[in-house]
Amino acid sequence: MPIVGMVGGGQLARMTAQAAVGLGSTFKVLAGSLSESAALVTRDPLIGSHLVTADVKAFADECDVITFDHEHVPGEVLVSLESAGVLVRPGSAALRYTQDKLAMREKLSSLGVPCPRFAPVSSAGDVVSFSGGSWPVVLKAISGGYDGKGVWVVSSEPEAATVTAEAEQHEVSLMAEEFVPFRRELAAQAARSPSGQGAAYPVVETVQVDGICREVIAPAPGLSPDLAEEASRLALTIASELGVVGLLAVELFETASGGLLVNELAMRPHNSGHWTMDGSLTSQFEQHLRAVLDLPLGAPGLNCPGGHTVMANLLGGTDPDVYDRYIHVMAADPAVKVHFYGKEIRPGRKIGHVNIVGSASDSVADLRDRARRAVSYLRWGTEDGE
Amino acid sequence: MPIVGMVGGGQLARMTAQAAVGLGSTFKVLAGSLSESAALVTRDPLIGSHLVTADVKAFADECDVITFDHEHVPGEVLVSLESAGVLVRPGSAALRYTQDKLAMREKLSSLGVPCPRFAPVSSAGDVVSFSGGSWPVVLKAISGGYDGKGVWVVSSEPEAATVTAEAEQHEVSLMAEEFVPFRRELAAQAARSPSGQGAAYPVVETVQVDGICREVIAPAPGLSPDLAEEASRLALTIASELGVVGLLAVELFETASGGLLVNELAMRPHNSGHWTMDGSLTSQFEQHLRAVLDLPLGAPGLNCPGGHTVMANLLGGTDPDVYDRYIHVMAADPAVKVHFYGKEIRPGRKIGHVNIVGSASDSVADLRDRARRAVSYLRWGTEDGE
Repeated sequence: MPIVGMVGGGQLARMTAQAAVGLGSTFKVLAGSLSESAALVTRDPLIGSHLVTADVKAFADECDVITFDHEHVPGEVLVSLESAGVLVRPGSAALRYTQDKLAMREKLSSLGVPCPRFAPVSSAGDVVSFSGGSWPVVLKAISGGYDGKGVWVVSSEPEAATVTAEAEQHEVSLMAEEFVPFRRELAAQAARSPSGQGAAYPVVETVQVDGICREVIAPAPGLSPDLAEEASRLALTIASELGVVGLLAVELFETASGGLLVNELAMRPHNSGHWTMDGSLTSQFEQHLRAVLDLPLGAPGLNCPGGHTVMANLLGGTDPDVYDRYIHVMAADPAVKVHFYGKEIRPGRKIGHVNIVGSASDSVADLRDRARRAVSYLRWGTEDGE
Repeated sequence: MPIVGMVGGGQLARMTAQAAVGLGSTFKVLAGSLSESAALVTRDPLIGSHLVTADVKAFADECDVITFDHEHVPGEVLVSLESAGVLVRPGSAALRYTQDKLAMREKLSSLGVPCPRFAPVSSAGDVVSFSGGSWPVVLKAISGGYDGKGVWVVSSEPEAATVTAEAEQHEVSLMAEEFVPFRRELAAQAARSPSGQGAAYPVVETVQVDGICREVIAPAPGLSPDLAEEASRLALTIASELGVVGLLAVELFETASGGLLVNELAMRPHNSGHWTMDGSLTSQFEQHLRAVLDLPLGAPGLNCPGGHTVMANLLGGTDPDVYDRYIHVMAADPAVKVHFYGKEIRPGRKIGHVNIVGSASDSVADLRDRARRAVSYLRWGTEDGE
């Protein structure tokens, strides 16, 4: 059985390690330190930097194929590995579209995939003319960002001027996008293997607060079968046309008029797929490994047909000791599935998530309520904290 | 979060390690070598012998509580750890009943738990008088065994004489048990925490071939609700009366007359509970950890109410390379859940298991057929191998 290496030691690598146990594949991580989430639960993690070609190359030498926990490995590092004959999945040609948002928009548009209107901008004047007088406008760093930010919503020329000036200072290129007054956000996940097999998960609804995913409902309640099919088809088409290997998550807007627009792409296991760990026959982490190993893909359906699964992200509160509260949550709801990432608790940091799996007889409102109460208690010590 | 250590590096420790990832607890193993099943998937396994007090003590010093992958740690080692203040779960007083079958029978009988008729024997004459002319008779080593065997079925005085003579040579004490012409074998699993909380899993049917568990059907098809309740009550009573902490598996005979007799006990995760990994809200491995950590126990019900899960053990065949066959099985049945133990393949060795999870609309016969076809192909390269 080939050895799979994942670059990055975060929670996605941690949960992929967990999936690798049953699959029987040897799984290794390249982590920044021994205390990183995935390094805590894997044998002999290699410590090094994903930014340094020599570190990634040394890691790849121990593996038959490498994949990624994040999209921050520089394109030139990826290309250099590929030139040296390393199996990199997904490859640099696909990953480019997660690192260059303008290239992604141009590519998707060329494929006829519906996207928000967009244009590169470099001055407040560019933003004003892009707006055509209709505000707000979304500004995005084309690659990376600065001060931990990469997306700004501006509502006037002066606001735009502030962002464009700062971006210029940081040598960051910007693009503008139409602000979409969406009805809700959806995500469509699909896996694709090098052999070209594709498998789409049920389309989910995602609930964001302050730009952070807080809750996922799988499948998206009340989604019309036509729209669900269109979203899945989009994910499979994008995976195929962009040459993705592994998991692809397509974040979507369901517009006020009932259409779909692609928001973002991620080519790895994704927060919108954490529900699959308990709610689907094949978890997204196992599916990613199967794709990366070019194994036949697993059934992406629901564990319990007709039921829903609700995932809620657990963010850190102010009390660093979660253990006493954990006991309370387990006692209050013996069916809550808590997944901790082994991370030090910092306010607002994603430190885990919970899944509540329901059968056809459970109401979505009740499942959401249980998920919210669990994460609220874990974070704040009260069920009414969020 | 306390650190849990498991003595033993086999597949049970491997799957417990997998469950520990989500629970967020730090999990360590004491393994015999770095190539053992659990050592392959845990950070910094400690290498040592479970027979050597110093090794187990050094391991316990790194942990807040220790538990076990098997019942082979000598009683005197356990007692010495307990005297030194180590939290040992289950404790020596409970584990004694898995190491001394005569003590187990005497204890269960004193509790009114139905067991096969039994008596200690030391000669063929003892066996003959035990039989009362009714053969066969089951002979068991009271502790351990020899040449890898601990159970013999004898049908005459000369056969009994052979076993008693060999046992005497190996200084092994024997007991006789009535041969039970059972209708089928069942297993009841329960967890018990130090706080005294108990939780019983649905009672399952187990199918043994040549003394090896080959298949488990959960819940046991067609089991009367009364008998199911009696089996669960037995497991909870035994766990409580014997002071078990963690998982208890009670292997049972369903007799021709529709009653229950206790066959064997195990105080750890057990082969009869592997179905819970995919079929229950709480896997037996997570449940064992919760009990050992004195956390509230998880819901032991079915993931999909009304459905069945079939587990089939995967034994090694003659071809050491299972990978090509694995690909075929995945392609043939994308919903089969294969769990590999990372063990070298040897003929007849347990190297993994498969679970097939069904919903209420799936027939048990179909689920069993899918499980059998998967393990047959993995073992023999044909779906008709067993």
